[in-house]
Amino acid sequence: MEIIQNYVYLADNQLAELQEIIAQKDFTKIALLVDENTHRYCYPLIRDFLPKHQIIEIPSGEEHKNLQTCTHIWEEMTKAGLDRKSLLINLGGGVVGDMGGFCAATYKRGIAFIQVPTTLLAQVDASVGGKLGIDFQGFKNHIGVFQEPELVWIDTTFLKTVSESELRSGFAEIIKHCLIADAAQWKELLEKIDFSLGFQALIQQETQRISQLVAHSVKIKAQIVEADPLEKGQRKLLNFGHTLGHAIETFYLFDPEKKLLHGEAIAVGMICESWIAWQRGFLSAEEFQEISAFIQSIYPKILLQEVDFQKIIALTLQDKKNQGNQVLMTLLEGIGKGVYNIAVSEDEMRASLKYYAHAD
Amino acid sequence: MEIIQNYVYLADNQLAELQEIIAQKDFTKIALLVDENTHRYCYPLIRDFLPKHQIIEIPSGEEHKNLQTCTHIWEEMTKAGLDRKSLLINLGGGVVGDMGGFCAATYKRGIAFIQVPTTLLAQVDASVGGKLGIDFQGFKNHIGVFQEPELVWIDTTFLKTVSESELRSGFAEIIKHCLIADAAQWKELLEKIDFSLGFQALIQQETQRISQLVAHSVKIKAQIVEADPLEKGQRKLLNFGHTLGHAIETFYLFDPEKKLLHGEAIAVGMICESWIAWQRGFLSAEEFQEISAFIQSIYPKILLQEVDFQKIIALTLQDKKNQGNQVLMTLLEGIGKGVYNIAVSEDEMRASLKYYAHAD
Repeated sequence: MEIIQNYVYLADNQLAELQEIIAQKDFTKIALLVDENTHRYCYPLIRDFLPKHQIIEIPSGEEHKNLQTCTHIWEEMTKAGLDRKSLLINLGGGVVGDMGGFCAATYKRGIAFIQVPTTLLAQVDASVGGKLGIDFQGFKNHIGVFQEPELVWIDTTFLKTVSESELRSGFAEIIKHCLIADAAQWKELLEKIDFSLGFQALIQQETQRISQLVAHSVKIKAQIVEADPLEKGQRKLLNFGHTLGHAIETFYLFDPEKKLLHGEAIAVGMICESWIAWQRGFLSAEEFQEISAFIQSIYPKILLQEVDFQKIIALTLQDKKNQGNQVLMTLLEGIGKGVYNIAVSEDEMRASLKYYAHAD
Repeated sequence: MEIIQNYVYLADNQLAELQEIIAQKDFTKIALLVDENTHRYCYPLIRDFLPKHQIIEIPSGEEHKNLQTCTHIWEEMTKAGLDRKSLLINLGGGVVGDMGGFCAATYKRGIAFIQVPTTLLAQVDASVGGKLGIDFQGFKNHIGVFQEPELVWIDTTFLKTVSESELRSGFAEIIKHCLIADAAQWKELLEKIDFSLGFQALIQQETQRISQLVAHSVKIKAQIVEADPLEKGQRKLLNFGHTLGHAIETFYLFDPEKKLLHGEAIAVGMICESWIAWQRGFLSAEEFQEISAFIQSIYPKILLQEVDFQKIIALTLQDKKNQGNQVLMTLLEGIGKGVYNIAVSEDEMRASLKYYAHAD
């Protein structure tokens, strides 16, 4: 077990140590938030290491990351008699962590919570940084707070429960962390790992390497967040790929036919935003090609229709990092170096989406 | 205009100064939250001193301090295109301030807000201390956060718009502040002010004295809150009268026949909790009689039925300051000195309610 930063712990099947830490803290009551998947697949791995607790189950999926589900969670917390010295443990992916954290941070004006991220995406992204929240009327994470958890317990043992496509989705954030902050690690991704094996096989066969990759990625995120917890400045680096990526994800959110995972949308966002960086001369043609080809070798092609571009662009206007009506993006100034607060025009966004739609 | 503490300003019809402060801060957009009463009576006093703004109106009353009204506020904030550098001004009583503050603190994970309390209750209590929140399924302030506003602008000019019963309600918190922290001020209340005039007349005729009283009361609260913002210790002093008071208020909340104002419930709470303090020997018989008689001379008698005592006591178990299943109360150890975290039994609470019910 390694303490990556303050309250962020990285472990590999070391839940007995988590048990000890919780025991030392003397909580009056403990509730555990799960969805039906983590209840079934992850709970058995952790159950025997938890003190007496009450289970709260919510339906899985981003479409349930809303006020209605919060109401259910707050109701169950109330029924369980949680007081201000109680603890909520969030066992699951980003939705469980973001929403459970938000419910804990607002229940009786805030009780302690522990994040136990079980997906790759949540481990390398959502669980670190204190961003909590829910979607609201189609806007992602529109309602929420910044609040640091008592503890983040990142245990790679849970990755064995994650599907191939969810692992691939989470990997997009690892790619992002390399692109904005670590050129050397980017080279390693390209040269040392055989992604044709598939992620599930990699986790079984190269557990050590994947654990290192997760640790490295969490460290990059944790450092950036620590330097700028409230996203006044450099934390915006983490938004690379997310301006257009979030807009694409939101656009597909309520279309039951086109289920898009977060990382799949971010992968498209990173290609489009790299394209804009290339057009502006921030990236060389070779760098852009390397990024675009690598991401496309891993992620399935998303079908974007030109008729929808305007709606996607309109959604970027709701991005929380904007000021006034100006879309501000994070771009790359070479691989391994992000730059933030770059004003980008609708024409540039449209052209980048067009590039992606026609790339092969 | 006087700066009472950090961001807390006390003024008497000096809105031009508020205008200057806001102008210096360079907000991208401004929205103003009102209810139908403050829209009609208070907005005309402040309108000309505000930069361009969007009005968001909600229905008045504690029964609307809920998630449904928050949803409306968040919707309107979204429609108005507020970004993270925008400002929400909450013009109203405790409900507008608590709920508007909560909506601002959670919109896009938090934007700036200014509290302009217009009732006596909000001026001497709710607006200071960063407690924000809403009621949830019958539990008062069950969902919320701690977040400090950009500014609290306490302007006594607004008190002229407040009804007699609302002024009387707010005055309960002034009484409380004297009882927990200032014996000299308590004596002044008893000896120097002729309450038989009524509060509206006092505000017109003794504006200076009332302003001083408000300032004094806000200072007591601000000092306590500054020393313990997250209510780990001495901030609990402010809970005097509120354990049973809140429970009584909640009990009556959804009974349309028995509309009870916050301060009216707290007045009962202060009598009952002083009774418990007397029984324990914390207060002398004379001190208790003085408190009980003074409060009863100002506040109308509330009809409490013995058959309801158990329900009221059950509600105290949901108090956020409790730990485990133990009701912790703030009592008085002499007038002017509160003591907190005193475990109180159900029998003591029942006996104190019985005392009040039969007092004349």
